[in-house]
Amino acid sequence: MIPLTFLLGFYVSNVVSRWWRQFECLKWPEDFLSILCLLLPSKESRPARHQIARYLNLTSALAWRDVSTKIRLRFPCLRNIIDAGLLTEKEYEKLQDINEPSPGIRWLTPLHWVQQLIDAEIAAGRGSVNYVSVAMNELKAFRISFRRLYCHDWVCVPLVYTQVAALATYSYFFFCLFGRQDLNHDDFYSLDSFFPLFTVVQFLFFVGWFKVGQDLMRPFGLDDDDFELSYILDRNIVTSFTIVDSLQDDDPPKFEEDVFWKHHSEQQQMHQNMFLPKVPSSLKWGRIDLSRNAHKHPPKLHTYLEMKNQDPEEYKNRKNNKFIAW
Amino acid sequence: MIPLTFLLGFYVSNVVSRWWRQFECLKWPEDFLSILCLLLPSKESRPARHQIARYLNLTSALAWRDVSTKIRLRFPCLRNIIDAGLLTEKEYEKLQDINEPSPGIRWLTPLHWVQQLIDAEIAAGRGSVNYVSVAMNELKAFRISFRRLYCHDWVCVPLVYTQVAALATYSYFFFCLFGRQDLNHDDFYSLDSFFPLFTVVQFLFFVGWFKVGQDLMRPFGLDDDDFELSYILDRNIVTSFTIVDSLQDDDPPKFEEDVFWKHHSEQQQMHQNMFLPKVPSSLKWGRIDLSRNAHKHPPKLHTYLEMKNQDPEEYKNRKNNKFIAW
Amino acid sequence: MIPLTFLLGFYVSNVVSRWWRQFECLKWPEDFLSILCLLLPSKESRPARHQIARYLNLTSALAWRDVSTKIRLRFPCLRNIIDAGLLTEKEYEKLQDINEPSPGIRWLTPLHWVQQLIDAEIAAGRGSVNYVSVAMNELKAFRISFRRLYCHDWVCVPLVYTQVAALATYSYFFFCLFGRQDLNHDDFYSLDSFFPLFTVVQFLFFVGWFKVGQDLMRPFGLDDDDFELSYILDRNIVTSFTIVDSLQDDDPPKFEEDVFWKHHSEQQQMHQNMFLPKVPSSLKWGRIDLSRNAHKHPPKLHTYLEMKNQDPEEYKNRKNNKFIAW
Amino acid sequence: MIPLTFLLGFYVSNVVSRWWRQFECLKWPEDFLSILCLLLPSKESRPARHQIARYLNLTSALAWRDVSTKIRLRFPCLRNIIDAGLLTEKEYEKLQDINEPSPGIRWLTPLHWVQQLIDAEIAAGRGSVNYVSVAMNELKAFRISFRRLYCHDWVCVPLVYTQVAALATYSYFFFCLFGRQDLNHDDFYSLDSFFPLFTVVQFLFFVGWFKVGQDLMRPFGLDDDDFELSYILDRNIVTSFTIVDSLQDDDPPKFEEDVFWKHHSEQQQMHQNMFLPKVPSSLKWGRIDLSRNAHKHPPKLHTYLEMKNQDPEEYKNRKNNKFIAW
Amino acid sequence: MIPLTFLLGFYVSNVVSRWWRQFECLKWPEDFLSILCLLLPSKESRPARHQIARYLNLTSALAWRDVSTKIRLRFPCLRNIIDAGLLTEKEYEKLQDINEPSPGIRWLTPLHWVQQLIDAEIAAGRGSVNYVSVAMNELKAFRISFRRLYCHDWVCVPLVYTQVAALATYSYFFFCLFGRQDLNHDDFYSLDSFFPLFTVVQFLFFVGWFKVGQDLMRPFGLDDDDFELSYILDRNIVTSFTIVDSLQDDDPPKFEEDVFWKHHSEQQQMHQNMFLPKVPSSLKWGRIDLSRNAHKHPPKLHTYLEMKNQDPEEYKNRKNNKFIAW
Repeated sequence: MIPLTFLLGFYVSNVVSRWWRQFECLKWPEDFLSILCLLLPSKESRPARHQIARYLNLTSALAWRDVSTKIRLRFPCLRNIIDAGLLTEKEYEKLQDINEPSPGIRWLTPLHWVQQLIDAEIAAGRGSVNYVSVAMNELKAFRISFRRLYCHDWVCVPLVYTQVAALATYSYFFFCLFGRQDLNHDDFYSLDSFFPLFTVVQFLFFVGWFKVGQDLMRPFGLDDDDFELSYILDRNIVTSFTIVDSLQDDDPPKFEEDVFWKHHSEQQQMHQNMFLPKVPSSLKWGRIDLSRNAHKHPPKLHTYLEMKNQDPEEYKNRKNNKFIAW
Repeated sequence: MIPLTFLLGFYVSNVVSRWWRQFECLKWPEDFLSILCLLLPSKESRPARHQIARYLNLTSALAWRDVSTKIRLRFPCLRNIIDAGLLTEKEYEKLQDINEPSPGIRWLTPLHWVQQLIDAEIAAGRGSVNYVSVAMNELKAFRISFRRLYCHDWVCVPLVYTQVAALATYSYFFFCLFGRQDLNHDDFYSLDSFFPLFTVVQFLFFVGWFKVGQDLMRPFGLDDDDFELSYILDRNIVTSFTIVDSLQDDDPPKFEEDVFWKHHSEQQQMHQNMFLPKVPSSLKWGRIDLSRNAHKHPPKLHTYLEMKNQDPEEYKNRKNNKFIAW
Repeated sequence: MIPLTFLLGFYVSNVVSRWWRQFECLKWPEDFLSILCLLLPSKESRPARHQIARYLNLTSALAWRDVSTKIRLRFPCLRNIIDAGLLTEKEYEKLQDINEPSPGIRWLTPLHWVQQLIDAEIAAGRGSVNYVSVAMNELKAFRISFRRLYCHDWVCVPLVYTQVAALATYSYFFFCLFGRQDLNHDDFYSLDSFFPLFTVVQFLFFVGWFKVGQDLMRPFGLDDDDFELSYILDRNIVTSFTIVDSLQDDDPPKFEEDVFWKHHSEQQQMHQNMFLPKVPSSLKWGRIDLSRNAHKHPPKLHTYLEMKNQDPEEYKNRKNNKFIAW
Repeated sequence: MIPLTFLLGFYVSNVVSRWWRQFECLKWPEDFLSILCLLLPSKESRPARHQIARYLNLTSALAWRDVSTKIRLRFPCLRNIIDAGLLTEKEYEKLQDINEPSPGIRWLTPLHWVQQLIDAEIAAGRGSVNYVSVAMNELKAFRISFRRLYCHDWVCVPLVYTQVAALATYSYFFFCLFGRQDLNHDDFYSLDSFFPLFTVVQFLFFVGWFKVGQDLMRPFGLDDDDFELSYILDRNIVTSFTIVDSLQDDDPPKFEEDVFWKHHSEQQQMHQNMFLPKVPSSLKWGRIDLSRNAHKHPPKLHTYLEMKNQDPEEYKNRKNNKFIAW
Repeated sequence: MIPLTFLLGFYVSNVVSRWWRQFECLKWPEDFLSILCLLLPSKESRPARHQIARYLNLTSALAWRDVSTKIRLRFPCLRNIIDAGLLTEKEYEKLQDINEPSPGIRWLTPLHWVQQLIDAEIAAGRGSVNYVSVAMNELKAFRISFRRLYCHDWVCVPLVYTQVAALATYSYFFFCLFGRQDLNHDDFYSLDSFFPLFTVVQFLFFVGWFKVGQDLMRPFGLDDDDFELSYILDRNIVTSFTIVDSLQDDDPPKFEEDVFWKHHSEQQQMHQNMFLPKVPSSLKWGRIDLSRNAHKHPPKLHTYLEMKNQDPEEYKNRKNNKFIAW
């Protein structure tokens, strides 16, 4: 009667794409921090880099505890973030001063400090201005990602849509409850002796499908299926400090002549030494074999048209045929 | 008979994605203002920053009152915006002068002033040119977002589409009205004594679904479900002035040695002091435990293949097997 | 028999998204012209700015008259554009010279002139190079938008798709014509005396739905539902010249101390004057009240978890519980 | 029994969007060449510009002949491209030298030459560095578009998906073949005397729909519906050389005072001459009439709320009503 | 009973789009390396270019062996990558040092080295700073693509969605198993003598469809349908070293006067020599014929409206008709 399937199909499909969009709103600090290492590369800038890395994770902690129950339980009040080491007492006071007159700007504040720190470093002549615009674009993307999370939290799938879906699902079974009982007994007091197996399976199925939609609507809760934001925060902290402290302090490896370098040199020599016979076109490159035999399923060009009998001498005869317009 | 479900499914799905697209057209001034604080960082530029922040919100007020009933009722005429403090008398006269010969350009004007103010500040040597292109791209995005709102207001879901959906929904029930009456009575004058329960439920359901589409088509009205533009405007004003006035005037916190900094230093010392035994690879990092036991559901790589019996000594024997092509 | 609904559902859904994509291909000159005002801000550049604004609209006129019947009827031949004032006689001749050997490049030519004009202005020292890359990206977007319009005009929804949809719709009713006639009369010559009401409604509905698709496929025609390109062109011309002539010639308003500025100053003073009691955290900011009472439906964070009994003294006891891992 | 419609609906919908994505992978050289004309504007750079234009089209020819049967038949072997004038003998040899050890890189080589030519021109002091980053981004987009074509050719719609669709379509009719024959004859040897009209129509319809999917999967073949790549290549060559040779060699038109310029001057004079009465707000601008009467269907703001009885004097009374919160 | 089709339709459609998104996460090193050749063009930078090319492929090997079974089997342990020549012993030790305290950052490390190498080259005066921001954006895109692969591996299609689909598919056939047996025999012990052909076909079809979804969910496995990552890695290595070593070392071809250059010169001469008759507008350009006869299906502008009787003399009469508003 009521075409439940169709309604639920569209509804759940809508919710699933929203769910993935929300996952993509999670930003990873390494994108900005890698560029920061280019912007402030010197050893003297290490304190600034370290402070900036901490502020990025502080922003994550502040914003995520507003949208995620897991992070909320981990940092029930702001002082827990101090205990975690992401915030100092002085910064805490500054944050409180800002938050009092204008609530809602607290999570933006550490990102503003990041800007000011970078600006101070550049003013002190320790930054390389070539990377400024790339870094600022990345910082902007970082900021926007958090606001998009807030927006997704504010503006859900339209409530009225969910209501229609819920109404349809439950009213369907409400009517099944009565409609599928056989009332045409001779004896009014006899009970239905059949267990309504199919109705139960249908119930499991439709309500299950509807619940998929409900669960995915709030992907930052405490469910097993929800995103493990707490792990991601830990991972981000470890990655952040490793990049700005360990990786950037270390020098990159020195150049060594690897096999590909040697192969190229040999090729060059052979090329110059014209007496040696050139290697026939065997598709071998260094130790890599790109010929079709080396792989079981090499990607093949599906529309590729093998030209038969096509030796270089013959091509001139084709010149006048219809395909070569000029 | 008429496959209402399907038609409504596609129709509503279309409208819902349009609804979300419209929400994403709402722009937030902090994106531009944060970059503005980098562009004009000095204390002398504070008046310019303040003026620019006001103009951004003035643009929002001017544009949103054309598309949103809520903002329209808040600012029924332009002088109400003066009362709100977003516009001064002189600016009001300038706006009127512009608007008279070329209507439709009024909301663009404050953004043009923003450009001119920035240009004047840079000419006065108070801007840092590195950030110019990032800032201008952001300002452009701000301007475009408002025009996209206008466009969504002009060009609705094609009218003919809505008409087909409405026609189908209502004609369906019009025919139900007659078709489901049982006319094969012996006695012509007897009435149907059954209440058409299922038809009523169907009616509620289909018309409800159709109404979802109708409601979401105009998300800036006075409905409870509509976006709370008035709140967003207030929030934007508070955020804007806090960023350009309070945040930028304040200095960022000084560097302090946090726990992660100390942890790194200890690691470094241990590394240099070769007599001490190195900490075994316990996945512990500072006070963070990234091992699989610390989290209930750490993200796991699903296609990750554990190589069994794979100690470093053994790998050489595998060299000749089929998987290592080179 | 033939599942018309489904086929039409997918077909129309495809066409509607193409229709909207085409609308988004309409470009608005103010995006480029605003940046142009930054690039060539001086009064001496006004002729160049004016000329460039005219060329942008000339390009629109040239390109749109190839894809839109409305613009075509407005400018049946190229000289009508001269009459409209968008083209001068000399430019007309240049365009004809270009168009003769290489047709199809005519609409690109004015945009090339724009580039050359900008380059000449910059060479003359009247441009500020900071904005060059932003402006050029915008000009590129402008050019691409027209070519995308041409592409949409060339490459329609695949013809074979439309054919299958048309074939199915019409054959469906062709068979209804015969199949729903009752031939089992006793008397062969008697006619069906029923009016096939339902078939007629179905016909209206399905053919109506199919026609939605047909109409939206060509959104630049003369229909009432089609985009009002002629109005948009007029609006663009007015907006363009107002920006480059009136707006840019005018100075931005002087700075005045508005209510928000005064509010901030008072706050600052109160802060410094420590004897005065601080205002309690009332969520009031200036004259704006962000508290939950001021708005009927303030956006609320749905997953926000209120921590009960959470005074600052108590938080230390929570340190050892399971949620605070470190 | 088997819900063919639904399967085919999703399958074809998927293929159609892939088909359009592939069309959008076709890149047009004028985007890069326009910026090139800014980067290398001088007459001395004309040979370099000409060479670069040729290389862009050479890349198209090389890449498209791998994915399109039409271009393949036009250039059956590489020497045919020499005949077409897109390649010289020396370049041919260089290409062969590159292609031998590392197949698959041939089409990338001309784009590398483009880079080197630009770099040489800039080193020679004939390029303007402001445009470098815009140009390089465009060149990158050009390169990527070809690789995306290759990728679409390698990785089709998953084979198993097509197989399920084919299997379902054909097995459906295989069973119809038997299932719709009436075997309950008294006389076993008599034949069905009805022509299975509906089955034939269904067959035409379903197989036709499936074939739509098949045809669109490879849009670069020889079908009538396929993209006319050969024409596009011709058009690109003509456009390319016209831009870099004819257009860039020519000077842009001189500035002339057009009607809009004159209109603005008159307005200015009237403004300064305060004794003359100002023109009433008639929505007339120059010769353009933006008033609602001039167009049959001007776009109207749907949510626009006309404020009644709203003269400037009255607005103060509204100040205390509920809508003006502050 | 249970509308399997619909559920599977949405489910598989969702999975297929995820499958394609994952393919688009595969990044190709030539995009970055081409820009690198501009950034570090000199012969002295060849070792750095070579090292960087190797690091890009090393990153691919490290990241892909975490998500792809094929690459895992090729490099079962890290030392196999040394054997392949992508890693040296010293780099191996550095990687191990980094990986021990902070697992998960290993694949990021070579990209950090790339940054440091570029920075060192630029500091040594061998880089051209114009290309820095383009190159860094490309490097960022390269880094992000790998993390997106990890993210797709972590966060699958929501498990509960798959479970509902699996449950529905299998329970459907479980009930068919019983429900389609005919139990109303007179003789209880007689068996059904019909082979349930249709049920078997349905089973093949539905389970096949479901399996399409399952297979495409993990596109980096060992299946025949899965992406041939191992081939792509080989291809990338060959392409990378050819670009940075062979292509960049070679000079671009010298300028030669091709047919298009000569054609243009002739045209110019004809133009200047005014006595010669001008070639009539024949749409011929060089040897290219863009006229409609040369191609079988030239793209045609569908909405193009041919203006009849439209000679240049006549256009003035149309001036007063309704279409020319001004």
